[in-house]
Amino acid sequence: MADEVETAMRAIAFSGGTLDRADGLREDAAALAALVADGKLLEMEGIAPLLDERGGLCWGAAGAGAEAAFLGRDHAGRGHFAPIPAADAANVAPPDARLWQAMARIAPEELALYGLARSLAGWHARHRFCAVCGSPTRLARGGWQRDCSGATCGAAHFPRVDPVVIMTVEHDDALLLGRQPRFPPQRYSALAGFVEPGESLEEAVAREVFEEAGVEVGAVRYVASQPWPFPSSLMIGCEARARGRELRIDAKELEDARWFTRAEVRAAMRGEPDAPFLPPPPHAIAWHLLDRWLAGG
Amino acid sequence: MADEVETAMRAIAFSGGTLDRADGLREDAAALAALVADGKLLEMEGIAPLLDERGGLCWGAAGAGAEAAFLGRDHAGRGHFAPIPAADAANVAPPDARLWQAMARIAPEELALYGLARSLAGWHARHRFCAVCGSPTRLARGGWQRDCSGATCGAAHFPRVDPVVIMTVEHDDALLLGRQPRFPPQRYSALAGFVEPGESLEEAVAREVFEEAGVEVGAVRYVASQPWPFPSSLMIGCEARARGRELRIDAKELEDARWFTRAEVRAAMRGEPDAPFLPPPPHAIAWHLLDRWLAGG
Repeated sequence: MADEVETAMRAIAFSGGTLDRADGLREDAAALAALVADGKLLEMEGIAPLLDERGGLCWGAAGAGAEAAFLGRDHAGRGHFAPIPAADAANVAPPDARLWQAMARIAPEELALYGLARSLAGWHARHRFCAVCGSPTRLARGGWQRDCSGATCGAAHFPRVDPVVIMTVEHDDALLLGRQPRFPPQRYSALAGFVEPGESLEEAVAREVFEEAGVEVGAVRYVASQPWPFPSSLMIGCEARARGRELRIDAKELEDARWFTRAEVRAAMRGEPDAPFLPPPPHAIAWHLLDRWLAGG
Repeated sequence: MADEVETAMRAIAFSGGTLDRADGLREDAAALAALVADGKLLEMEGIAPLLDERGGLCWGAAGAGAEAAFLGRDHAGRGHFAPIPAADAANVAPPDARLWQAMARIAPEELALYGLARSLAGWHARHRFCAVCGSPTRLARGGWQRDCSGATCGAAHFPRVDPVVIMTVEHDDALLLGRQPRFPPQRYSALAGFVEPGESLEEAVAREVFEEAGVEVGAVRYVASQPWPFPSSLMIGCEARARGRELRIDAKELEDARWFTRAEVRAAMRGEPDAPFLPPPPHAIAWHLLDRWLAGG
């Protein structure tokens, strides 16, 4: 059972990276310099990937003077680095459709590597200044830290990872799915929301489902997780059981929410032409949550 | 089974808050003003709690001119607020022993409320400036956002929650526990570490156990989670199975790590005088992980 979850997890987009992050080398300036000397630098346009004709990531030589973040070493011990982009609006923007299409062609382990590079690079672009005192910050620990340059502050800042709960909500044999205004036409997906300070994962699931759909849930069960580099979320997939079906939809969060039968969810996941909705895309953990629910998880 | 986990979870310190966070009111200035008018303001010294003679939290009247963060409404609909402290070093410092002792006397739902207040207040104290451009920020959405005041930037910033994996590692009938240099004498506890960008929870568990102890793990299973307001972590408790017992300890992270037998862990958790180590304190999720492992999970 646990092994099944582990196997399923490896197929989830943006996970399954194969580099050794070699945490111990991050503060070893000499080791990092040696890795840079014959290392590989991911080619990005801001935080978007450049792709070759076969759809693979493009790599140049590290070693030039520009700042870079150490992603890890491959099996041969070779260092991989991500460039640090300028702090402009494009580097904070969500991915566009062109990017989704390109990413569908990248091999899974390359997608995991790109996701890490995108999250780290985007974090650097958005953290040029110290949130404590406003002084400029500078890159430290191979790109895994930024230090305040202020004489009296000197705060250390670390890459941000934002936990998000995303959940299927079941009642009898039906599934509650919602539609955000920004979704493509017809798409319904699992409800989701950021975990807030002062709550457990299970409390976050219950709060979000009640806030967005007015539905109270009982038991909550963890299923799987996914790093999601837009900009740097950790999607935590759960299953929840609803105590009833009555909906009170928060129109600020959702355009619609509905209960779908098992047959309707199956038709949608199979892409049948008369299915009542379009499912989430396969690179999203929501797709895996629906797939697992159909399999009787 | 899931209901058991839910029940166990409620007993975990800092979770189990009973306020309605009323997310929808955070951007409703008129509603917030009405709640402030007869609301309650938590009394804190910086981010430390003030306690009355019975060990309860102290509350004053909200409504004064000072900035405050909206924590939520109680069953009677009354607003609860946390004061925003000055941005000084004390508000970034970890808790001291005096604070742990005081917290042991607070009722569980009050401890959850204080944890939320501490995380939010500390976040405000450490985010007076915009990390994107260095301009001052100002409180927004009832204290759940800070907005950049820069004319060309205008970035919105949200409270940070840092996911941390913490795990029991089992091999046959023994448990791997480690000792950080900052621990009180004799204490051993579960290994733990921050989730990094570009990895799932399960990958983070495997990476941390390998980095800190040189042990490879196979199956990883989620157990329970805990909000941990020092300053604002989400502790994600897991169980992992080791593939072997050979240790290679990272001396920068751990002072020691050892395999303990079930009898040794039981003796420690019971506080027996000849136990080979002191267990983690009951307010830490590590205590629950050890307790669950002893119960045969």
